[in-house]
Parts: sequence; structure tokens; C-alpha cells
Amino acid sequence: MSNSFGNLYKLTTFGESHGPAIGGIIDGCPAGIELDIHEIQKELDRRKPGQSKITTQRKEPDEVIFLSGIFEGKTTGTSIGFHIQNTNQKSADYSHNTDVYRPSHADFTYAKKYSLRDHRGGGRSSARETANWIVGGAVAKQYISDIKINAFTSSVGEIFLDKPYQELDFSKVENNVVRCPDQSTADKMIKQIELIKKQGDTIGGTITCVIQNVPIGLGEPIFEKLHAQLGKAMLTINAVKGFEYGSGFCGAKMKGSEHNDKFNTDGSTKSNLSGGIQGGISNGMDIYFRVAFKPVATIMQKQETIDSDGNIVIMQGKGRHDPCVVPRAVPIVEALSAMVLADFLLLHRARR
Amino acid sequence: MSNSFGNLYKLTTFGESHGPAIGGIIDGCPAGIELDIHEIQKELDRRKPGQSKITTQRKEPDEVIFLSGIFEGKTTGTSIGFHIQNTNQKSADYSHNTDVYRPSHADFTYAKKYSLRDHRGGGRSSARETANWIVGGAVAKQYISDIKINAFTSSVGEIFLDKPYQELDFSKVENNVVRCPDQSTADKMIKQIELIKKQGDTIGGTITCVIQNVPIGLGEPIFEKLHAQLGKAMLTINAVKGFEYGSGFCGAKMKGSEHNDKFNTDGSTKSNLSGGIQGGISNGMDIYFRVAFKPVATIMQKQETIDSDGNIVIMQGKGRHDPCVVPRAVPIVEALSAMVLADFLLLHRARR
Amino acid sequence: MSNSFGNLYKLTTFGESHGPAIGGIIDGCPAGIELDIHEIQKELDRRKPGQSKITTQRKEPDEVIFLSGIFEGKTTGTSIGFHIQNTNQKSADYSHNTDVYRPSHADFTYAKKYSLRDHRGGGRSSARETANWIVGGAVAKQYISDIKINAFTSSVGEIFLDKPYQELDFSKVENNVVRCPDQSTADKMIKQIELIKKQGDTIGGTITCVIQNVPIGLGEPIFEKLHAQLGKAMLTINAVKGFEYGSGFCGAKMKGSEHNDKFNTDGSTKSNLSGGIQGGISNGMDIYFRVAFKPVATIMQKQETIDSDGNIVIMQGKGRHDPCVVPRAVPIVEALSAMVLADFLLLHRARR
Amino acid sequence: MSNSFGNLYKLTTFGESHGPAIGGIIDGCPAGIELDIHEIQKELDRRKPGQSKITTQRKEPDEVIFLSGIFEGKTTGTSIGFHIQNTNQKSADYSHNTDVYRPSHADFTYAKKYSLRDHRGGGRSSARETANWIVGGAVAKQYISDIKINAFTSSVGEIFLDKPYQELDFSKVENNVVRCPDQSTADKMIKQIELIKKQGDTIGGTITCVIQNVPIGLGEPIFEKLHAQLGKAMLTINAVKGFEYGSGFCGAKMKGSEHNDKFNTDGSTKSNLSGGIQGGISNGMDIYFRVAFKPVATIMQKQETIDSDGNIVIMQGKGRHDPCVVPRAVPIVEALSAMVLADFLLLHRARR
Repeated sequence: MSNSFGNLYKLTTFGESHGPAIGGIIDGCPAGIELDIHEIQKELDRRKPGQSKITTQRKEPDEVIFLSGIFEGKTTGTSIGFHIQNTNQKSADYSHNTDVYRPSHADFTYAKKYSLRDHRGGGRSSARETANWIVGGAVAKQYISDIKINAFTSSVGEIFLDKPYQELDFSKVENNVVRCPDQSTADKMIKQIELIKKQGDTIGGTITCVIQNVPIGLGEPIFEKLHAQLGKAMLTINAVKGFEYGSGFCGAKMKGSEHNDKFNTDGSTKSNLSGGIQGGISNGMDIYFRVAFKPVATIMQKQETIDSDGNIVIMQGKGRHDPCVVPRAVPIVEALSAMVLADFLLLHRARR
Repeated sequence: MSNSFGNLYKLTTFGESHGPAIGGIIDGCPAGIELDIHEIQKELDRRKPGQSKITTQRKEPDEVIFLSGIFEGKTTGTSIGFHIQNTNQKSADYSHNTDVYRPSHADFTYAKKYSLRDHRGGGRSSARETANWIVGGAVAKQYISDIKINAFTSSVGEIFLDKPYQELDFSKVENNVVRCPDQSTADKMIKQIELIKKQGDTIGGTITCVIQNVPIGLGEPIFEKLHAQLGKAMLTINAVKGFEYGSGFCGAKMKGSEHNDKFNTDGSTKSNLSGGIQGGISNGMDIYFRVAFKPVATIMQKQETIDSDGNIVIMQGKGRHDPCVVPRAVPIVEALSAMVLADFLLLHRARR
Repeated sequence: MSNSFGNLYKLTTFGESHGPAIGGIIDGCPAGIELDIHEIQKELDRRKPGQSKITTQRKEPDEVIFLSGIFEGKTTGTSIGFHIQNTNQKSADYSHNTDVYRPSHADFTYAKKYSLRDHRGGGRSSARETANWIVGGAVAKQYISDIKINAFTSSVGEIFLDKPYQELDFSKVENNVVRCPDQSTADKMIKQIELIKKQGDTIGGTITCVIQNVPIGLGEPIFEKLHAQLGKAMLTINAVKGFEYGSGFCGAKMKGSEHNDKFNTDGSTKSNLSGGIQGGISNGMDIYFRVAFKPVATIMQKQETIDSDGNIVIMQGKGRHDPCVVPRAVPIVEALSAMVLADFLLLHRARR
Repeated sequence: MSNSFGNLYKLTTFGESHGPAIGGIIDGCPAGIELDIHEIQKELDRRKPGQSKITTQRKEPDEVIFLSGIFEGKTTGTSIGFHIQNTNQKSADYSHNTDVYRPSHADFTYAKKYSLRDHRGGGRSSARETANWIVGGAVAKQYISDIKINAFTSSVGEIFLDKPYQELDFSKVENNVVRCPDQSTADKMIKQIELIKKQGDTIGGTITCVIQNVPIGLGEPIFEKLHAQLGKAMLTINAVKGFEYGSGFCGAKMKGSEHNDKFNTDGSTKSNLSGGIQGGISNGMDIYFRVAFKPVATIMQKQETIDSDGNIVIMQGKGRHDPCVVPRAVPIVEALSAMVLADFLLLHRARR
């Protein structure tokens, strides 16, 4: 139950960072979708480690291999199984962690919940899992190809991209390694990450996502509101601490007379503080939201912590980790969004 | 599917604000729980309209009637059906809205999604539904009675309660009508709401919720993380635009060396920026989060809007509405939290 | 989880035979269906007690009251809540059973599972619950009105209706109280039931159900096969001990060369031993199946049994019970079938 | 949704008979179970093709490879991924079927449902999928190791094993290739299958399954009755046409005074026509049921059929198929039973 995402478009996954492979099963993708495998691999490449100087230097090809559900280039309507081999796991890197609970990691909670744990690289709690999500999302993107989903880095530490998204050119997101479409802000962010990295430290940030060309009527009232499902999806990503859509936390300071979005005669609205959703249902305006990521917990500094017997130990990160998770999380935000929208699109069609 | 909340502890609901009754079915409450019906009614009274000068003046007793699943004062393990009569609906109040799409309400999206809608008082999209949630949550609270859940108003517009929750006395939340445990801040908030009300306007705010004494190990890794489910629950509440837990959006500005929570030798942590959850699983520390509410969309001022034919019309709120939804939403935040925790507690027991 | 039936068309229910009311919530019925409430009540009347000399003489009007989800005669797409009052429960009838486990009833298993139980009339295990199913099914029938579902009594004890269903006139099912469309067989069945009743005994029987005009493609491969879901639905009915479809248990004696259904050039088949389903998916031919009901466990004879302390006690049924449950179960078989088909029809639409 | 089985103990699968591999993900297996992989492989060997002269001569090793969820020999509580390579698929065998709908196969229904299909060996509809189920069931068996599940061949065509199961020695099931624990009946069955095979024909049969040492209280009332879920599981197996438990279809001919199971003072019953379940909940007595399998549709005789354009074509089975599916289905019946019981055991624990 915990390893499945979605209702009608459903991804179920498995895999630890240091097992032979990770993978998943996509259930519910309609038949007859022509899948461009190259496009799916490109999404994986956006997430993969070792892609730039500001990400972890660990190298893994992260090549997806499809095992079922595709015939002569098209989906058959049956379940789509896939694998990604783990080619570069170095368990030795983690041998010193066998018994140590790293601060602000899931080591302690897994150990207590399950009474045993795979300590190598965080085991199942590793963000390596998100490669599976990329695959699920990349297939979803091809199913809902009319809907445009664009995420980008909107802050790193105290450096904020302070333009409204309407002024941005999303085609420039991939122009720099930090995935911020405004080059001068990107430069500052990159510099900041490089500085933090030199300090052996890490830093948080935010991602903004804009979803355009959404049909009116997606989302279900009451307990399956579109934004609630998007929020849950985002909070599922490792290191995420917050989610806001439309006016978000700023909206909580406003008056109704300022906040209400006035209608045009065609049903569109003059402003869009609502964020493209009313009563949990898409209204055809842009959906946009912002996701907060805490700094990566693994730092290259000495830290005092405890082992499983409660002894105090000194540890220092030795693996190859990201100084800032945000640039690599951009395609993850898009992938989960795509799966949420595919799911609601299927549900919407059922009811017509 | 859209009208059910939870997996093992599940609430399914029905009802429009202007039908004969609303109600629900609680499925999965274990047998043998002694239910204090009076306590459940008290929770409903905290939410009910007309309770103070700063809420809507509409009066409804909101009396819950249980129809099944309880025998000689105890739950039997079978489904618990209940309803709440709608005693004070005045459809006439809404006759002028038959064909009008109120700005920033769900009128437009419901009309487009379903091609027809019950226009009276928002129909199914009305926040009257939340009375059902209070019942589901109040029963859950009695099942998980060791866990302490306290929500309170932490901001109204620009007025913020700026003390850490550890300095607050939760027993004072009910001492004032705005449900802020710090009386001097509460006074300012009340004054602000009264002012806004006089202007025929509305205002947003935030609620903070603190959950204490949570067993270690609740929550599931990957797709059913405890905070993701809490976030989804909060985003389910009408008017909510954002959710953050632990360090939240502030955490996105921090460095790893600042953000990591150092362990004590007993496994507790010296700081708690994590917000009581690691890897989606409770670690025994306090869980705390903050929820952003936009201002109520119904204002007592003239607004230009459109009808279903796209004609421009002038409308003015005539119903009896809340100038600020936050005080009445406090028990709703607690109720949904209680259901999420009951659900995860049941799941946790299954796996032992 | 246990009190919900279906995925996209979902019925959730509550109620004990001796509480104030039973009822349910239908979730997922599409918007815009014109509901004929009179037709729904007619289905309830087919199931209600006291309708003829061969059923229990207990009288209950079983009037359904809809509380939500219908506006100006049409479904709105939101959840449909309904109640049926319990008007004729006589708890006194059961006071002698407080502590006694009736043989082949669920008293013992409920007591052991939940440690406590509502002993009045079987509590939640009472077949009174099936009135809720009739409502869920009657609404579904109106949604899938092109599909024709006809069930009838095909045996009572050793008396079998030995004609193939193709030779029967389904419009005659309601012509007699035993609901067998062949009058001469019906006469024998009625006589048999009257005899059994005089003996203070009960008798089993079977129901055959024929579903016609089913679109090709309903049902899902692998774990949601159409016949598997129909089988589960039938095995859900109180007293059911077996289910077979198409050739059924007879098919297990046959050779492949006899059993294979040869195709006509239009894709229909010359024979239909498959029962209208291949690989779990409807093929457009008639679906037909047979359901076995054991004799009602409550008999009007003295029986030795035990109480909750393990003491031997002598009991004798005093309530007003059915000598044969089969005639009243005919509309229940149809109702559950209708819900299964509605559910798969919705799912089928989603994937197109 | 269609490719997942179970609620808390859940198996999700993928794979076509002629793709590179099949496989699955087991979600919900508790942590700390010591898995004997050799035992799991033994169950696969019971199902694999080519194991005896009366099964298909196709040879496949069917070796399961686990990819996650197991650490140092124990389950970790996270999802268990596995796959089984397809080593012996000969697509050429099926090239003549590209466009032909085989009688009483799922070719026609898949083609119509999905508009396209993988025609090689039945694609997703192939019984090769059941190897995945064996893995899911073999892991479940190790989790519920106190519960004893024994299935055996109880009839082939007209040859019935006519002893009550209590007189059988289950340890002899594997003593002969037809998996009937009574050797003299087994000899007749084997002879019958050999004869049928020589004729290029196939034959149906039944499997009986006995589940012993089940804790009292498994199963949920109303819509998740233990026997309803077992019935659904059995009807999920390819070629199954019927399911009966306890007295089954015979019970439909009986009187209540004969059918009721009298209690012993310890709560056990003197007879067990109920089949170990009352009101959907296990009562501690043996659970037993019978499953009907139709003859395999692929026969080695010439058959007239149609192609996708509606042309009449003559086809003859050329693959290597089973003359009788029943012997190889015995471990499948056990595997699905084990998963159903594991699921209900988890659910039962949740509610305590």
C-alpha cells in the first residue's frame, strides 16, 4: 500500500540504493500510446547523479529497461514493468554507518519501525527511488501530452528568483545546471552552491511548478481535491517541508476583496490567486505551486551522533552527496505532477 | 472514491448544505472503544456557526445522531453511521444565485465538471461538510486518546502569534473566540476581524497544530509518508492554500549544518526542525505544522461577476458568512489530524 | 474497508437489524442520471419481508429516503446518501438469545472477533443489510439501463428448473411468489417450501442470473476479471455457498474439443459455454451464472447449542424467518450484478 | 488496479509470456520474516512446465531472482521486487496466430478492449503470469507458517476422488504427477490424461483445497468475507469456471435441520458443512473448497475459427500445451489462498 502511487494511473515501486536494481510497474496506462523511450531516458538523465559540478559526483547511467506492456512501440493497456540497474553502488562507502544513526536521516525511524534495516546508502529511504518516479512520470507525460508541465528552481538559500512566472521563458530551464530560467539569478545560485560545497555544507531551496493547458474539471470534490493530491505528491519527495499553491501563505494575509479572482465573460479569470483550482477542481487557468526543500542532511563536516546502542559517536559524511538537492529535484516535481494529472484525467473520463 | 477519507480508519460522507441532512459512515474503528457522545458533540459545537460575534450569525444546532456500530456505549467494530439534520437552511437566501458564478467559489468548476449543480449554498462544496469530518475526527480522538492534538489560530491577516508553541498553554485555546492561546494576540486578532467584518470584507489566517505523544514508527515510507498524508488532509479543508511542517519554508533557506537535529543518547533530538517525522515516519518528537487559509470568498460588498450564459452581473453576498474562517477551522484541523493518526496507528499494528 | 463495495461505483453501508435505521452512501454515480425513485422502491418491495406466504411474515415497509446527491430529479455526481428506517424491530424477540450462539449463524465468530456483539437479530450480520444493496443496485440499474439483468429461482431443494434459460420468458419471473419463470416448476417449488415450513424446517436452493446486452470489453485482465468480481459479489450474499458461470462445474468434466465456443464471422460464438466472458473480459455474448444458497440456519425446531460460557442450552427459533431465502434473494443477485457492471463500465470508459 | 492482488499483503505483477521477463512486487510483507528462498523455488518448480509426461513439454527453469526488500536473509518491511526471466519463448511458434482469434481464448476480447494486442503466446493473458503468483504465495506461506494449506486434484474429467478429505494423507500429494493423494485414483487420472493427450484433446477437472489451523476471526463481515475473497482469488485463475466451499452446491439441496453444524462445548462444531467460515469470518474449523477448471482451449486438432477481419481460417495448435491444466494448478490454488490469508491476518492484527 505504501509503495503504490495513484488510483487509476498507478505506479508501484521497489528497490534499495545498494541492491542489484530498482524498478516499478505502471498500471492503468491506456492502450495505444506511442512511447518515445528516448524521451523517457532524457528525463532520467535530468535527474541522474554526476551531471554537473554542483551535484553529487557519483556516476550512474540510470538506464531504464522496459520489460512488458509495450508492443511494437505502443502501450498495450497491460502493466508496464521496468528496471534500472544499480551499477555504481559502493557498499563499502557505508560500512562505517552500519550501526550509526545519521542526524536528520531516516536511519533511526526505520530501525525503530522495522526492528532491522538495510543500512547501505539509506536502503529504501534513499532518494535513488525517485528514478522510478521519473519513469512513471515520463510515461504519464506522453499520455497527457497536451498538458504542459514546467518546474524550475525558484530559490536557493536566500537567493530568490523574484519575477512572476509569466515573465519567464521555460525553454531556458535547461540552459544552466541549477535549472533556473533567469540566467543572472541562476549564476548567483550556482555560486552559492559552490560556496556551500566548499564548506562541506548543504543548502535548501524551493521549486516552482507551472501546469498549463489543463482541461476544466480535473480533480474531485471533497477528499480527492486536485491540489490536495498535488500537495501530497510533493510532500512525498525526500527533503520536502512545505507546499503552497496559488496565493499560498501570502494569501493568508489578504482580504477577500483583494483575493477574489474576477471572471471574464468566457469563464477565465482576470487574476489567478486561486492557482487554477476551485473547490478542488481545475478551472482552466494555470496551476502553479511552490515546494520547499530542506538542506540535504549529509554534510561533509564532523557531526556528533549516536549508534544503535545509544553511544555517542563522531561521524563525517564520506559518500558523494549533493550540496543542494533542488536542481536534480526539478524533473521529480514534474514527474509526480504528471502522474497526478494522468490519474485525474482517467478518472474524469470515467465519469463522462 | 472522492467521498472517502483514510484507508483502515475510513470516513465516507454525503450531504449538501441545503438538503435534509448531512452524514457519514466511519469504517474501521476497532471494537470495544467506549464512546463519550457528549465529547463528540462538544467538538461539533466548537465548529458550529453562530457561536460568537466573529463568526457567521447563522444558527444550527448541528446535533449528531448515531445510527449504528455502537452497542451499550461501545463500538462494535462494525460501521458507524451518523447524520446531522440541516435545520436552518434557507434556500431562499440563495435563489438569487441560481445562475450566477460567485468569484473564487466552486460554482463555475462544479457546473463545468458535472454539467449541472445544486446551487443552494454551494451544494456539496459547502464547508457544511466539515461537520461530518468533526464527527469522524472526534471518534478517532477517543480511539487514539494517548496522542494529544492541539491546534490554534497562529495568525489573522498580518497579526501573528510570534511565540514558539513550547511557550503556549494549550488549555487556553478555548478561552477566547478566535482560539489563540495568547490572550493579547487574540485581542488584536478579534479586533482585526471585527474591523474587517464592518467593512463587509473577509480576511485570511493560519492555524498551527501540534501533535504530542505520538508513538515512534507511525507513517509508511515512500508513498504514504505521515507528513504527506497530514498535508493532503489539510489541503482538503476548504480555503486552504498551503501546508508546511517542521522548519517548513524557512527550512529552505537554511544550511544542513544548522538544520540537522542532533540526537540525545535516548534517541530524542536536541532540536526539532524535522517536525517529529523522518523519512515519513514519526520519531517520537512533537509533530507540528502550519496551515494557510485564504480569506472567505463571500464578501458583503458588491462584486461584478458572470452568470452561466457569460453575462456580466452584479452580486452582493446576502447569506450569513464568516469574516474569517480560521477560528472555526481549528477543530477541523484537529479532526482530520486525528483521523490520519488513527489510520496510521491501525496500519502500524497490522505490521507488528 | 469491509463496508464498501466497488471501486468507481462504490456503495458504503451501515446498520444493524435492530438499530434505528440502516443506510448507505453511493459514491461515483455519474451526474445527470434521471432517477426514477419509484423503480428503486419497487426493487426494495421485491426483497422486503412479509410479501407472500412463503416468506417471513415480519412486515417492514422498507421505504428508502434519499438525503443527498440528487437535485431536481437528477444525480449531481456527488455522493448519494440514503436511509431506510427500521420500523418493526422487536428486540424482545431476541432477548432469549443474548448469550446463546445459534448454530450455523455468525454469533460465535462475531463474538470471538470483536469480543462483544450486538446480539439483537444478528446485529450487523443480519440479512437486513441486503436492503441497502438493493438501493445501490437499483440506482446502478438506471445508470446501465441498456444492460438487461434477469435472475430467477432455478432450484429449491431437489426441485430443479431443467430448461435452458433461452427457453424462459423472464417477464414471468414476478408472476409467482417463488420467482421461477416456469409456472409448473414454480408450483412444485412453492409446495415444497410450504411443506418445509410446516415442518419448522428450512431449505436451500439456487438462483440463475442472465445478463444480456453487455458491451464487449468490460472487465479487467489478471486480478479484476469480470466473472471473479461477479463471483465475489455473489459469495457476499448471506447463505451463499457456491458460484459457477458458463459451463461451471459441468465444464470440469468436458473435453476441449467439446467445450470450445466456435466463432461466427461477426465475432459472436455458436455456443456459449464460456458464459460471455473470455480472459476476464466480456465478449458480447450472454453472461450467465448460478449461485447456491444453503438452507436458512434459523429453524422452528428445538436445537441443542451452547452459550458464551460453553454451557449446553436448548433453543428454538422464535423470530419470523424465511423457510427458504431464495425467492427474496433474486433481486439481491440482480442488484449486486448491476453494481459490478456499473463499476466496470466506469472503469472501461476511463481507459478509452 | 487490475494488476494488484490484496489489500495489506499486496502483489502487483507484470509480464507477457514472450517478453524478456515477468515479475512482481510484494508490498506489505512484515519485516523480520526469515525467507527460505529454496522453498520458494520449490513451489515454482511444482508449477513449471515440462515437469512430467502429462504436462506441456515446454521447458523453462522459472528461476526467481529477488531484487529488493530482503537483507541478510530477512524481509525488511519494504517492497520485495522479483523477476523471472523468460528463457524459452519461441515467438515463431505463434507467428501463425498473429491475426487469428483462437476459440475460447482471450484473443478476441483483448483485441476489442485494447484495439491492439501482443499476440505472442497470449501476451498478458497467458497463464505464465501464474508463476508470479506462486512467488507471492510462497512468501506469504512463510509469513503465515502456522496455517496449513493443502490442495490436490480431486477430479479429472469424470474420474473423481470420492473420499472425504479427512481420509487423505496430504503428504502424498507430490507422490504422483497428477497431484492426487489417493494413488489408485491418481493412476486412473494419469491414464485418462494420457489418452486425451493422444487424441490431441484436453480435459477439465477440479481441485480441492483444505486450510487448517486458521485462527478464529479472520475475514471481515459484509463486503470482505473470507470465503468471498477466496472465491474471487480462485476465479482469477485462468480456466476456472466455478467455486464452492463447505457444503457448496450440495448444500443448496439440504434442509436446515441437516445442514446446521452443532456446537461442541469448546466452540468447535460436530460437523463442518459451513466449511470453517460463518458470516464471512473463520470459526477455527477446517476451511475447504473446490474449484472447477474447464479443459484447456488449445487443442492439437484442426479447428475452424476467424481472423481479425472476420475471415474463416483453419488453425491447429502447434505450441507445447497441457492436456490438463489441473496438476500444475494445484500450487497456484495454494499460493492464492496463502496470499488471501496473509492479507486477512494483517487486517485482523490491525484491529486488535
